[in-house]
Amino acid sequence: MSAFDELMSHQRETEALGAIAGRLGWDQETVMPRGAAAQRGEEMAAIESVLHARRTDPRLGEWLAAIDATALSQADQAKLRLIRKSYERNTKVPAKLAAALAKETSIAQGIWAEARANEDFDAFAPTLQKVVALRREEAAALAAGGDLYDALLDDYEPEATGAELEAMFSALRPRLVALREKILASGKVPEPLAGEFPEDKQLALSEKLARAFGYDFNRGRIDKAVHPFSSGSGQDVRITTRTALHDPFNCFYSTIHEVGHAAYEQGVSEDFLLTPLGRGVSMGVHESQSRIYENQLGRGEAFTAWLYGQMREAFGDFGVADARSFYRVVNRVTSGYIRTEADEIHYNLHVLLRFDLERKIIRGELEVADLPTAWNERFEADFGVAVDKPSNGVLQDVHWSVGLFGYFPTYTLGNVYAGCLNKAMRAALPDLDAQLAQGDTSAATGWLRESLQQYGALRSPKETIAHACGFAPSEGPLLDYLEAKFADLYDL
Amino acid sequence: MSAFDELMSHQRETEALGAIAGRLGWDQETVMPRGAAAQRGEEMAAIESVLHARRTDPRLGEWLAAIDATALSQADQAKLRLIRKSYERNTKVPAKLAAALAKETSIAQGIWAEARANEDFDAFAPTLQKVVALRREEAAALAAGGDLYDALLDDYEPEATGAELEAMFSALRPRLVALREKILASGKVPEPLAGEFPEDKQLALSEKLARAFGYDFNRGRIDKAVHPFSSGSGQDVRITTRTALHDPFNCFYSTIHEVGHAAYEQGVSEDFLLTPLGRGVSMGVHESQSRIYENQLGRGEAFTAWLYGQMREAFGDFGVADARSFYRVVNRVTSGYIRTEADEIHYNLHVLLRFDLERKIIRGELEVADLPTAWNERFEADFGVAVDKPSNGVLQDVHWSVGLFGYFPTYTLGNVYAGCLNKAMRAALPDLDAQLAQGDTSAATGWLRESLQQYGALRSPKETIAHACGFAPSEGPLLDYLEAKFADLYDL
Repeated sequence: MSAFDELMSHQRETEALGAIAGRLGWDQETVMPRGAAAQRGEEMAAIESVLHARRTDPRLGEWLAAIDATALSQADQAKLRLIRKSYERNTKVPAKLAAALAKETSIAQGIWAEARANEDFDAFAPTLQKVVALRREEAAALAAGGDLYDALLDDYEPEATGAELEAMFSALRPRLVALREKILASGKVPEPLAGEFPEDKQLALSEKLARAFGYDFNRGRIDKAVHPFSSGSGQDVRITTRTALHDPFNCFYSTIHEVGHAAYEQGVSEDFLLTPLGRGVSMGVHESQSRIYENQLGRGEAFTAWLYGQMREAFGDFGVADARSFYRVVNRVTSGYIRTEADEIHYNLHVLLRFDLERKIIRGELEVADLPTAWNERFEADFGVAVDKPSNGVLQDVHWSVGLFGYFPTYTLGNVYAGCLNKAMRAALPDLDAQLAQGDTSAATGWLRESLQQYGALRSPKETIAHACGFAPSEGPLLDYLEAKFADLYDL
Repeated sequence: MSAFDELMSHQRETEALGAIAGRLGWDQETVMPRGAAAQRGEEMAAIESVLHARRTDPRLGEWLAAIDATALSQADQAKLRLIRKSYERNTKVPAKLAAALAKETSIAQGIWAEARANEDFDAFAPTLQKVVALRREEAAALAAGGDLYDALLDDYEPEATGAELEAMFSALRPRLVALREKILASGKVPEPLAGEFPEDKQLALSEKLARAFGYDFNRGRIDKAVHPFSSGSGQDVRITTRTALHDPFNCFYSTIHEVGHAAYEQGVSEDFLLTPLGRGVSMGVHESQSRIYENQLGRGEAFTAWLYGQMREAFGDFGVADARSFYRVVNRVTSGYIRTEADEIHYNLHVLLRFDLERKIIRGELEVADLPTAWNERFEADFGVAVDKPSNGVLQDVHWSVGLFGYFPTYTLGNVYAGCLNKAMRAALPDLDAQLAQGDTSAATGWLRESLQQYGALRSPKETIAHACGFAPSEGPLLDYLEAKFADLYDL
């Protein structure tokens, strides 16, 4: 075998083992017996240790050095690039540091949960301080003199930089703040849904929505879980959803969001199965898929007209008079404390806040002890409301406790990318709204599959979006879309 | 770290990875999307390859050579013994042969299934011939001049020999044949159940039965699958069951049988978790647990009286007049072709037939081409009926196609062991029937856990049974139990 073939064969087995580790995670969140937690911890540690050993195997370095890439296809060159990057990343971090990080973050999550329950930031601060110190140490090992935050960001959004995101987010922030103020001042925000929506009927309609958005049940399944998520790549991409008796939108839009993630994974070319190209290229591009399914398609006026009919069929008269009123209720804007419950506008303000704070922390410009004050000041400035308690503020998200610094901005980057894709898709599909009004998303999801999903990780994230759209991504299309949509909704 | 500690740490990780591979099997049979089969095949191959590498890691040999076992506890000595045995077994078989076997048996199962569907033994014979040749080659590598069949048997029932089983089975066969003839000649075999039994009610009662037999849902779960099975060890032991509209006993006794297997795994001491002692010691001892739960407890007159009441509650009047009649229906004896549908007596005759034939094949005393004739002659001699087609005869079981030679006799050995355990348990628990008649199995399952299950693989299979019973196992108690039970049932 040539060095290239040996490398690819080794990589394929690593990909297969990675898929197994991912499925163990699915199992844990959906079907695992409660009493199996301790054993499962050892199982996860064992397979992660196998994966780490394979990803830092010195033979990878030898094979990579021996391969002449010039004669390879674009896809094979892309595979090599990703394997090299992973190898260099994994060998740069000392094993001792990696172990310390794994240990500290596994403890920290429990301490965070307890501190949140007790509204006690001080009980969490020393642990968070340790996690930050370890992540900064890791970032220093990766950055080789460069920016520490960028080194961490690269894990989630390859080739993005904090400076670039800062510029983009600075353009977003004032227009989003202005838009939310106009909407809230309009006095036209509707009441939320009232009444009860039987959960079995929610699940039945949720499954119908998944099918409507092209989810392939032959290569996936839907289960209930505490948190909705999508899991797996290739031929086995499973999603979860949840139900709340008084809030069917929670179920429906969680399902559509996760179908967006899953459709990306299911849409990748079969040729890339069990290779480094066989999955979504970054968190930001992944989020662009979940968001365009959920928002630009699922919360648009055309599709909500169809959904209104479906809900009338399933639940009878639920107190919303017509499709236009329903469209307003689906797109209700309120300035709540909680990111995961936020509307399309406030969501990004939540993310921008976290991005600025976590970047400062990693760059050593903000101390953990000063985090609550910084959070509360920024929240009041952007949301016009004072934070009432830590669980509604700095303690609300799990991310930092498990060491996820650099992850938050990919949520808004995903929205920005979704805005770009929506603009290009609308130009390519002039009749789209007429189809969506019939519950037919096939032209839209087909366009996304053809233009983006099939390529998996072939190109860099930014190139992936630019290739699909035909223009370089920027925040403009998202802002234009939001301003137009909400001006129409609230007669601004 | 000492050599002992290094070995145990390595082994613990191997056990955890083995548990993951087992759970992948569960996933495949219960929740896996149909379209994921090809990818799953690669995943299974990848983790099996990791496991094989770990089990033949030369460091195992070095650690084993460096350890002075004399000062170790009984449990640690037992762990060493099992690790050494596994290491020697795995390093004796050339990697090329192991790979050829894996490949041939994975193909052979499909060919067998098609041949069975087409009633065409000749289409299967060349493949079976290849599997036999490879297994004989493997047996020769393992046996080092000893008996080939014994070398294979040892994988499923350590330290058992074909000669010993032959002696035991020779004592069983004439008394079983005589018993079945007397029963069938009595003219008192009742009709089977008639009518329909809604499947949701079957599943509800099945869950109640699982709880009644002490299945711990905190460390397990029940799902539906095509074939009932138990999967996993330690804190995560899952079972499956199935339903048939007209045959609720299929569901109930499948569940009780699998609960017996699972109770063994759940009953092993927590101290043995993720060690070589942390699971059932052999197929035969495992089957003794499933069989004593299913038959000596579940099909006894006392427990069926309680079950009769439960079924009346669930299904109303289902055409059986009283508990005594119900007991007869549960223990209906018929000479069918199919092993998996056989009653307590005929089941063993099925197994004895397969044991004699497969032993001859592995020892080179019978050719694959002559298998159908040998099967049909033996079947007619023991069952009094001629085989009508291959799917009711030599093609009915999957075992040989996947290379399982040496597995069949453990089914009857399990029944023999269950007979011994039942005798000892009845002596220890004189009031048992009064409890069983109330649906209370706790004294019985508690006795089994205390006497046998908690020890896992600490002792050899035969020692495990002897330790629990207080006497050396033999076929006598099973025969006495069957003859007494069926003489009473059929007024012989």
